[in-house]
Amino acid sequence: MSGAGRAVGPVPVTMLGLGAMGRVLAAALLDAGHDVTVWNRSPGRDVDLVARGARPAATVRDAVGAGRPGGGTVVACLYDHASVHETLDPVAEDLRGRTLVNLTTTTPNESRELADWASRHGIVFLDGAIMATPPMIGAPGAAILYSGDEDVFGEVRGLLDVWATSTFEGADPGRASLLDLAMLSGMYTMFAGFLHGAAMVGADGVSARDFAARAAPFLAAMTEAFAADAATVDGGDYSAGGQSLDWSDLGHLVRASEDLGVDPAPIAMVEELRRRQVDAGHGRDDFARIYESLRRR
Amino acid sequence: MSGAGRAVGPVPVTMLGLGAMGRVLAAALLDAGHDVTVWNRSPGRDVDLVARGARPAATVRDAVGAGRPGGGTVVACLYDHASVHETLDPVAEDLRGRTLVNLTTTTPNESRELADWASRHGIVFLDGAIMATPPMIGAPGAAILYSGDEDVFGEVRGLLDVWATSTFEGADPGRASLLDLAMLSGMYTMFAGFLHGAAMVGADGVSARDFAARAAPFLAAMTEAFAADAATVDGGDYSAGGQSLDWSDLGHLVRASEDLGVDPAPIAMVEELRRRQVDAGHGRDDFARIYESLRRR
Repeated sequence: MSGAGRAVGPVPVTMLGLGAMGRVLAAALLDAGHDVTVWNRSPGRDVDLVARGARPAATVRDAVGAGRPGGGTVVACLYDHASVHETLDPVAEDLRGRTLVNLTTTTPNESRELADWASRHGIVFLDGAIMATPPMIGAPGAAILYSGDEDVFGEVRGLLDVWATSTFEGADPGRASLLDLAMLSGMYTMFAGFLHGAAMVGADGVSARDFAARAAPFLAAMTEAFAADAATVDGGDYSAGGQSLDWSDLGHLVRASEDLGVDPAPIAMVEELRRRQVDAGHGRDDFARIYESLRRR
Repeated sequence: MSGAGRAVGPVPVTMLGLGAMGRVLAAALLDAGHDVTVWNRSPGRDVDLVARGARPAATVRDAVGAGRPGGGTVVACLYDHASVHETLDPVAEDLRGRTLVNLTTTTPNESRELADWASRHGIVFLDGAIMATPPMIGAPGAAILYSGDEDVFGEVRGLLDVWATSTFEGADPGRASLLDLAMLSGMYTMFAGFLHGAAMVGADGVSARDFAARAAPFLAAMTEAFAADAATVDGGDYSAGGQSLDWSDLGHLVRASEDLGVDPAPIAMVEELRRRQVDAGHGRDDFARIYESLRRR
């Protein structure tokens, strides 16, 4: 949906935080011709951005344009939730009536807390969750999820679409973060599983590259099974699945990893989730039942 | 490569083990017109196969055709490594000069032990690792990896190709099992990560089906990063990667899962692997360095 927002001329934007991500976000805005003010807690991170036309700000108050009429959108891409408060609490009253887009990585509850804080100070708030690494910004494949105030999403979308495909995920300001973290959990866990497999074959002299050439198409194809597992989970009836927990004993996999001198942590984690369901008497149920080992009680 | 083997007329095959997998393997051989003898430890599992033309055997000795000239290939698809010995040790001398294809799920060391045992008894041995669930047998997408005696692989390939795409992975009889288990470790770990993400969003009212529709294409796309990670692992230099371990602190993900009342086991496992490398002073290295937390010492 990149590019679907309405076209905008140059608009004023303040970028707070010039870490690896903040710097590429600011650069993309400059490339798109916007009027970008930049600030970072530690100095010296803005040199190349200023050379490309950004306006440097020595203080947060200066960065958000306190006292200047028509100050533009403020984008925060800081270290964590605490940094957002440390940075913005002192200028909260200066931001009244302004738009704040938070791209700092926060948990759903932290995003909701920021939305409440913004609301108390009359600040219009949109929370974003970036599903991309810095080099992906501005390229196809980058996505940023947003939630909070839908009207604001529409108003600033011309800016947002500079960075990535922008999607609005709902009024709950924690929703974008929740979806992002849930997908990242899947991604990091998958990477750990891939690297565990690479360590297993590596112990026997097979290169990780050879393994990746097999594992990448195999795991990509296996994601097609998610939909059926999800239908089973949503239906809550695990009795009709194709592969039972009893049939999927992963003990031999843990043992094979140990035989090779490779830490079995990733597969041992799955085996523990499986074992809990088998011990509870559900061995004949479908493998998707390991969801029940994880879900909220 | 299915179908690439030389065409064969009906040949005698003995299938030992009629579990969910053994039954579909036997049925596929019958469909292909072969002369199939079937045996199972507990009776009654062969009724529909016999109705379709299989020859029932009351004992293993009868099944392997002891005393009959020209007994064919013996395929074992039993419960585990111990079952293979329990079943075949008593008839080892009857199998001298015959071909044994082991499709029982065994660890690499167990496959090597079976190859040694076969060699001591003059039995020609091929080990296979099935990368498919029973319903996939005979359909596109099913793969079976083989290792051991390459000449035998060539001789029996006409039979093997009835079941799946057949690939020969090398003379080490443990290699097929090793590759299979390494890929399965990746697969099961990925499923646990997907179900953890589904449990996170599920705690907030999002259906697993909605989550699967997002997570499946996202994780499939992310498998494209395996090749770069593998090159980093093979090179052994983690200093030049795109995303550092420090930058990838997963503590907020563990915390978000706990906030939702969802067991963080999958992502906590990854965070523990990451933490070990950070604690050892490698925080600025690429995320792929978690391989070093797993690999053989």
